[in-house]
Order: sequence, then structure tokens, then C-alpha cells
Amino acid sequence: MTSRRNIEPPVEIEGVADAEGTEPDRLDKLLQRGHVVIPANPRHRGVVPKAIGAEMGVKVNANLGTSRDLMDVSMELEKVRVAIAYGSDTIMDLSTGGDISQIRKDVLSACKLPVGTVPIYEAVCRSSGKGGPLAMTEDDLFGVIEDHAKDGVDFMTVHCGVTTKTVQSLKRAGRTTGIVSRGGAMLTAWMEEAGKENPLYENYDHLLDLAREHGFALSLGDGLRPGSIADATDAPQVHELMVLGELVMRAREAGVQVMVEGPGHVPLDQIEANVRLEKAVCDGAPFYVLGPLVCDVAAGYDHIAGAIGGALAAYHGADFLCYVTPSEHLSLPTAEDVRRGVVASRIAAHAADVARGRGGDWDLMMSRARKAFDWEKMLSLCMDPERAREFRERVAPADSRTCTMCGEFCAMKMVDKLLRD
Amino acid sequence: MTSRRNIEPPVEIEGVADAEGTEPDRLDKLLQRGHVVIPANPRHRGVVPKAIGAEMGVKVNANLGTSRDLMDVSMELEKVRVAIAYGSDTIMDLSTGGDISQIRKDVLSACKLPVGTVPIYEAVCRSSGKGGPLAMTEDDLFGVIEDHAKDGVDFMTVHCGVTTKTVQSLKRAGRTTGIVSRGGAMLTAWMEEAGKENPLYENYDHLLDLAREHGFALSLGDGLRPGSIADATDAPQVHELMVLGELVMRAREAGVQVMVEGPGHVPLDQIEANVRLEKAVCDGAPFYVLGPLVCDVAAGYDHIAGAIGGALAAYHGADFLCYVTPSEHLSLPTAEDVRRGVVASRIAAHAADVARGRGGDWDLMMSRARKAFDWEKMLSLCMDPERAREFRERVAPADSRTCTMCGEFCAMKMVDKLLRD
Repeated sequence: MTSRRNIEPPVEIEGVADAEGTEPDRLDKLLQRGHVVIPANPRHRGVVPKAIGAEMGVKVNANLGTSRDLMDVSMELEKVRVAIAYGSDTIMDLSTGGDISQIRKDVLSACKLPVGTVPIYEAVCRSSGKGGPLAMTEDDLFGVIEDHAKDGVDFMTVHCGVTTKTVQSLKRAGRTTGIVSRGGAMLTAWMEEAGKENPLYENYDHLLDLAREHGFALSLGDGLRPGSIADATDAPQVHELMVLGELVMRAREAGVQVMVEGPGHVPLDQIEANVRLEKAVCDGAPFYVLGPLVCDVAAGYDHIAGAIGGALAAYHGADFLCYVTPSEHLSLPTAEDVRRGVVASRIAAHAADVARGRGGDWDLMMSRARKAFDWEKMLSLCMDPERAREFRERVAPADSRTCTMCGEFCAMKMVDKLLRD
Repeated sequence: MTSRRNIEPPVEIEGVADAEGTEPDRLDKLLQRGHVVIPANPRHRGVVPKAIGAEMGVKVNANLGTSRDLMDVSMELEKVRVAIAYGSDTIMDLSTGGDISQIRKDVLSACKLPVGTVPIYEAVCRSSGKGGPLAMTEDDLFGVIEDHAKDGVDFMTVHCGVTTKTVQSLKRAGRTTGIVSRGGAMLTAWMEEAGKENPLYENYDHLLDLAREHGFALSLGDGLRPGSIADATDAPQVHELMVLGELVMRAREAGVQVMVEGPGHVPLDQIEANVRLEKAVCDGAPFYVLGPLVCDVAAGYDHIAGAIGGALAAYHGADFLCYVTPSEHLSLPTAEDVRRGVVASRIAAHAADVARGRGGDWDLMMSRARKAFDWEKMLSLCMDPERAREFRERVAPADSRTCTMCGEFCAMKMVDKLLRD
């Protein structure tokens, strides 16, 4: 192992360890190894930190934020409220429309969960006001990163692996869907226009200095992630991942917390391989997957395609699931879409936790409540109690112990006495 | 191999083979081996048969039917329409309320998809009018089966594996949720009350005669399937499966088409084992899984918990997915619940097909349409085009090539020219 700086725990570690049912010493060890991150910027007032990575419960992120077509700040703050209410672990503000800087401040003050951003979005937006998006300078980009850090952003997605070489690999690949990452596309277009290397790669040491100085975590974005089943696990994706693996090592040497983002669109038979590859190439760095979507044709229901992929990815070792909403591929999500997306990802995360030996007590309580016909308890134990209550109360069953699906032919009721005797 | 009767293909096999992209000879071989079933009762007028099993596309079933709390026949017929419209492969009428016999006739005439039933429901309902549900006689039960056969029911769920011995195993198991199968509970209660063996097991040869004579397929029900994660893959479940394995062999010897039903509630880490166990114990008989649900706490969203389990089960070899609706565990589904349930299961089935090398062309067409910004094509290729269009048209994007999520920062748009040069 190369000599390296310690990672300074960004917060008192006891509470975080307690929430995960682990020991502070163990958590600190995993943090130092880089197998767990705890994104928590000291400037994010009141942030409730979460541990993401090996041996921890699987975490869920909800993306929100304006676009230029829809820049209603109150709607975005409502999405923050909904994401928190339905149990998201973190939030990312991906705004690209309106007063982005003010929206971020509003989100940070409304949200005690760790907040992430993608600074390249704001850098490009600022530049597009003066000479077009590609007029951005390296200083503009690092200036935005510093602004985000000072505002208290807990983790930032930086697409450092989109390099001259990986873009060459992309051009050779003859992909079906090219680039589908906004940050990846922005950087690629900028690099081609400027004829320069990616500043986030070229000046990675400076980025690490900023991260350590301000206390934010890095999330190494997958700017070349495949956007279709046809492109899954192709050369550009794997090339980029190998660059990210090197950058993980450099972050650790610099004492900076780092996680790695992953696809995207992945068929079921390639999910395990994707997780194992990331864990091997990035030496166990926490893996943050976007879905993944297990097919391309589920628009309108992509939260379900993403829950299938996310559950399987997390079961095989992915640590952090970025939700997908039903409006993915179609439009900016509404607050109701955010709710559905968060719950779908939480089901995926919880299913993986259960299969990995965590969190089954919740299911046991639910099943005991079912056996006891204790409806109030059942409803309160649901992931989304309000939604469950709506279904339950749609029509009153004749026998309040049962539900309208089976009524008097409720199986548990029919043999209840028999199995107790 | 023991001597056995040929299975008479219930229909011209060419069309079915063609729909599956296989050769008639191959399909007939799989049918004779019992690795594929094609449920199609000659009395079901105009039925469009489907092949279920090895080497075929994964199929989806939608359950519907009245309960005594909700016996609105027009609503059930609307559910039939919705299930067909959103792509279910088969339908099961599980009615237990109102004029069950007439509802079944109505469903059969409204539905060209193969239709399944669970005759024990009607037998118990008829008896409960005269002396209580447990007053049912063996003759009552077989009478109902014959009625269903004559009406043209294509496949029937028969819980033949709920035997005196397997119920003893259940009593020893100390389960969290006892019995959750209605048919299983009815038979168990009846057996205990009458002090007799399960008539469907005791008179299995008679059942086989009826099936062969009338040309319906058997679906061996899992009356003791676990109803909670805590009970998953326990002794009663496996005991019952072993009985079903023997009954599969007897059905094949008698030239009767047979498939096997499976759980239920199964954590992610036990799904593959459940599929392999069924395939081994039942010598490759088609496996029809109910979900499975990968956790117990998702009521209100159980279609998602079921899609996760179903996708993984089908990827590992399950052939037929019974959908779960969002109202599972809470109430009888509405037509909208049926729509959501069917689409969720179709996503699961398709994801498995893609991973098993079938059906990826559809995804490729979609991804090419995305790359070409061809929105009409994209929408028409979605599993649920109307739903997708609702999302798309919620707010018009400024640039009609893009959507309101990313707008001018659409990744594919930003690098479109670059990757074409």
C-alpha cells in the first residue's frame, strides 16, 4: 500500500455507526480503506450523515432540479420534501434552469440529507450566457466547484474519466446511443471544441485539494455510460472505469473520500459482472449505480425497470442506488414521480438488504401483523403508509379482519384456528 | 423412461411455433417431453394458444375475478379488456362472488387468451350455500372441474400437493404466516374437518382422465407456498414440491399437459435455488411463479416487489409469471391496478428474455429511435404508449427534439454531430 493521508471523518462517527448497527472502529476502518464514504460537508448545517459502502445498508438517492423548460423552484422544493418523506437517503440537485445558485442554497437549507451536485452543469450554464456553453474556461469550472463547496454541498459528481483517450475509444465503438450522460456530453463537446484534455482529469490534484480542504466527497461520474442495452458493458465504458480506478487510488492517497458511478442500461445477465468489475478495478470503492435499467422499452415505468436492476446490483454488492422515476426518458419528474421513484428504489435497496442478511426484522414484523390481522400495524409498517391506506380503504370489506381481495375466503383466516390448535 | 401416452397437441402447432421463432418439430418435442405446455381447450372458441416453457418467451398471467365484497361483473370484464390491451398472455378468473358460473362464461367469451381457473373456489362457494364451505363432497369438486372443462377453461389450478403428510409438515414448521393460498387453505380446512385425504390427490387419476378427455392443462398449485420472507423455502414448501414432482410424472404418463406453480415470497438470494429445485424435482416442467415478492413490506407497490422477483426467477428459468398488482395484500384490484400489474410483469418477463438472448431487437429499435429523436416511434415502441405519451406531453419542451428533463442540454443532442463526423 502506498503511503497516504488519513481520511478525516467528516462528522462524529458514533451516530453513523449506530444507525448502521456497526461499531465506530469498524466504520472508521472501512472509511480509511475507502470502502465506505460518509459525505458530509462541514458547511452543510445540520446535515444527517449517511454511510455508503461495504457492510452498510444499501442507500438511495433522488435526483431533482430544474431544467430550462421547467424552472419552478417551489416545485423542486416540494420534490425535496417528498424525497425526504418517502425515505431517500440523499438528494442530488441537478438544476440547469433559472437561478441555479439560489436553488442550490434553498435545497441545502431545506434538506438535512446529504446533498450532491454536478458542477459542470452550472459551469456550462454560466458560460452559455456569455459566448455559448463551450466558452467555459477551466477556471470557470473550478470556480463553480469552489462555490458549491462553500455552499455546503456534500458530494459532487465529477466526470474525470472522460479523457482524450476514452473519447477515442468511444468514437471507435460505433455505439447505438453515443453519450447519454449530460456531464459527459458537455465535457466531450468542450474538449473537442477547445482541443484540450478534460480539466477535471488534467487538474485532478487540484480537485483533490479542494475536496480535502472543503470536506466534500467525490463521486466519479461515468460520463461514457451506455444508454442502451446494445451498448452495455462496451469498450468505452470499461476504458472509463479503468481510468476511474486509478483516480480512486489517487483520491485515497490524498485522503479524499471517493465513490464511483456506474451504468445505466445493463441487461440482467451483465449486472453481477458490472459490480464485480467495479469492485475489482476500483479496489472496493463504493459503487453508485444509476438504475440500472434492464431494458430500453419501459419508458413510463422506468422506475420498475430500474428497481429490477438496482435490486440485483445491490444484491451483488452495489452500495448506492440512484432512483429512476416513471418520467425518465420522457419529461422532468413531478413530485408524484419522485415519490414513486424513491419508493421503487427503496424496495430494491431493501430487497438486497434482506438477501444480504440485513433488515429482515421489518419484514418479520409485517408478516406477524398480517397473521394477527392487525391492519393499523400493517399499514404503519408499509414503505408508503398513505398509499397503502388508500388501497385498503377504497371499499370496506364485510369482515374488517380481511380485505376485499379474498373476503371470507381469506386463507390465513380459514386455517388460523387449525394451525393454532 | 416409462411408457407413456403421447400428448396430443391441442391446436395446430405451426402458428405457435412461428410466434416463438422456433420450428414446429422442436416445439412438439418440447411438448412431448413436458418441458412446454400449450393450454388450449378445444371448447374455448377462437383461443389464441401460447407456448409456456423451455426455450419460449417468458409469459405473463393476470388474475382477476370478483370477491364477495366486490362482485361487479362489468368491472371484471373491463379488467379482461385491460389485461389483453396491455399485453398479458393469459388470464385467470378467480371469482368467488356473485354468479361465478356466468362470470366464467362471460370471461371465456370475452377473452381469446388462454383462460385459467381454480375450481376449488367455486366448489366451496356452491357448498357454502348449503351447509357451509366444508360441506363440499368429492363429487361436488369434480363436478365443478367438469363444468369448467365443458365451458372451455384452458388450464386449471389444482392443489393436489396439499396432502395429509404435507399438512403434517406444515404443522410442525411453526410458520410465521401459515397458509396464504386460498385453495390450499380451503383444502386443508376441508381435510381436517372431514378427516380425509385431499380428493385431488386421492383421485388424481380421475383428474388426469378428465384433463385428457376434455383437453385442458393442469397447473399444480402450491397450496402451502410461504407467505412471508421468514417462511421462504421451508420444509412444507419443499415437501409439497416433491409431491408435485411425482404428480408431474404421472400426468406425463397419462399424456396430460402439466405445469407447476411456485412461490410466493422469496428473498433475492433464494430465487435461483427455487427455480433450479423445481426444474430438478419436476424434470423440467414449466414453472409458473407468483411474483415472487422479494420483501414483505411493499404493499401498495407489490407489483414492483413482484417484478424484481419475477425478473430474476425468469432469468434463472421460470417460464410463466403471475402478475402482482399494487393492491396486493390490501384490496381487490381495479382495472388501473390490473394495467400496472400487467406492465410491471411484462417488464420483468422482457428483461429476462433480453438476458436470455430473446427480444433484444425491440430494445434496439427503441434505442435507435432515441438516437434519431424520433418521438412518435419512441412512444409507439413503449410497453404502454398511452402512459408514455401522458408524460411526454405534460409540458411541451422548447426544442421538440428534446424532452423537458434535459432540454437544450440533452446529452445525445450535444454530441450528435461530433459522433457522426
